[in-house]
Amino acid sequence: MSLRRIAVLGAGSWGTTYAKVMADAGRDVVLWARRPEVAAAVTSEHENPDYLPGIRLPDNLTSTSDPAEALDGAEAVILAVPSQSLRANLSQWRLPAGATLVSLAKGVELGTLKRMSEVVAEVAGVPSDHVAVVSGPNLAMEIAREQPTATVIACEDHDRAIDLQHASTTGYFRPYTNTDVIGCELGGACKNVIALSCGMASGLGFGSNTLATLITRGLAETSRLGMALGADPMTFAGLAGLGDLVATCSSPLSRNRTFGERLGRGQTVAEAQEATHGQVAEGVKSCSSIRALAVRHGVDMPITEVVHRVCHDGLDPREAGAELIGRKVRPER
Amino acid sequence: MSLRRIAVLGAGSWGTTYAKVMADAGRDVVLWARRPEVAAAVTSEHENPDYLPGIRLPDNLTSTSDPAEALDGAEAVILAVPSQSLRANLSQWRLPAGATLVSLAKGVELGTLKRMSEVVAEVAGVPSDHVAVVSGPNLAMEIAREQPTATVIACEDHDRAIDLQHASTTGYFRPYTNTDVIGCELGGACKNVIALSCGMASGLGFGSNTLATLITRGLAETSRLGMALGADPMTFAGLAGLGDLVATCSSPLSRNRTFGERLGRGQTVAEAQEATHGQVAEGVKSCSSIRALAVRHGVDMPITEVVHRVCHDGLDPREAGAELIGRKVRPER
Repeated sequence: MSLRRIAVLGAGSWGTTYAKVMADAGRDVVLWARRPEVAAAVTSEHENPDYLPGIRLPDNLTSTSDPAEALDGAEAVILAVPSQSLRANLSQWRLPAGATLVSLAKGVELGTLKRMSEVVAEVAGVPSDHVAVVSGPNLAMEIAREQPTATVIACEDHDRAIDLQHASTTGYFRPYTNTDVIGCELGGACKNVIALSCGMASGLGFGSNTLATLITRGLAETSRLGMALGADPMTFAGLAGLGDLVATCSSPLSRNRTFGERLGRGQTVAEAQEATHGQVAEGVKSCSSIRALAVRHGVDMPITEVVHRVCHDGLDPREAGAELIGRKVRPER
Repeated sequence: MSLRRIAVLGAGSWGTTYAKVMADAGRDVVLWARRPEVAAAVTSEHENPDYLPGIRLPDNLTSTSDPAEALDGAEAVILAVPSQSLRANLSQWRLPAGATLVSLAKGVELGTLKRMSEVVAEVAGVPSDHVAVVSGPNLAMEIAREQPTATVIACEDHDRAIDLQHASTTGYFRPYTNTDVIGCELGGACKNVIALSCGMASGLGFGSNTLATLITRGLAETSRLGMALGADPMTFAGLAGLGDLVATCSSPLSRNRTFGERLGRGQTVAEAQEATHGQVAEGVKSCSSIRALAVRHGVDMPITEVVHRVCHDGLDPREAGAELIGRKVRPER
């Protein structure tokens, strides 16, 4: 089925960028923005000055602050709201029957410990194979600037993944398909926590050896969790695992990495939050839900554990580093 | 067996750094330097001003320009000369019988297409399980500054790997052991080629999404080659695969990455070589031998292929990028 009408719900940088991608792929895209002035700017000025300043948005991308208007006739619905508010938002929207629901959110819900696609299927009351996720090395601003980028679109129903792939392929954006939704989502959620640890190491003055070691061991603990939850281990070697992790951990554009840097330089979570206009990095919340998921499944995640203790139990990042390095020497696995 | 006397042959930045690590681990280390003035500076001033300026070397590390003196009584011999001159150097040295021979060189020999450990075993006339390799996220200058770093010591004879592990463990340097010599060596050799491609992308103005995609797909092609040659695929997910690759591709200290940046900005190989004091990055040579190895084993290595063509066939890096991106959309594997 060729997808024509697309609704994108959430006009932050990633939602707006994904709306641009699908409009550039020739689809009719309506973007829902919570604030009417953002919707007006996108429709009339072809710009989202708050989240993508300086990026000219295509003419076949319009915006509204009325969710019903955005959803009317949509064959695919792209969900681009923060992970911890996805459930509350979803319960207010009437999603078109049969539409493919696509989660762009990265995280594990606090309390329920559900992945975002599970939250979507549960609240929308649809089977899990109606829900897709997008995950990969996807810093929004680079894609908005039309830098060549690859990603993964995962759905248990491969035909839906292929329809989305065709509706999202442009000269600068290249999606691969996958059926491992669990692996792609966990890669996307865990990478924010590892990026916090990389930021802390950088803030403490450590260089590329430490960064590379945290990325390597971080991917290993992500894979362990993934396998315990039924993911395909190969997913973590791909764009939604390694690719997303490297992009997030190495870019100065990554909010989680820069938030971690502040902690590494000695700021508290509250101070770092104040310095970033009240925003808490996604990984600060999801380190707790991912840690709880690991405990539930008996999986050892030492990096996630120390990130959680730095963010929520007052552990000093310097002690966290010493704790990770001081583990006993042994074979690599 | 506890190793006491160590010879390190080659006083470049990595050889000198590894000599410092083993001296800091309490071993008696003699470093062979080709130039007598370097040997004199290391022994008398406790510094290697050419390669590790500003780093104070330990007192139990001495240096000589006489290889026989360095090798006298050595229980382990660390080989730290460039890969393409390792064979010529080895044939001039009399290695102590029974010693563990450790290759720090990263590459595949032009012509023979042999890995460095194969060259060592062949020239020294010893069984392959006498030869070990060291590979990991190991930017020398960061280790010399005693930043916490992990690595992998691989040897078919696990007892020799453990002896080396104990002789190389310090508060800032943490080796893991592995028996997959092939995988560790290929990870180390191929990463230089991928780092060239990352440098080119950066020189062309691309950001973290492209970098992460090249690292992910580069590790995938390295793994394919490794599996064809009998390596354990898990090695590439570890410190000697992913870890080394990320460190090399993301650090401004990496010669291969910075050399690639020059090519991406439009310099020819000759111009880039002139700008780097006549040095050619390791990957410029090994892209050809690795490509030949891939052809021999029927393995598809698209990134290595375009790096080879940029370095040796005059392909424009911009066209190389377009060629990699323009590949047909399809499932991720």
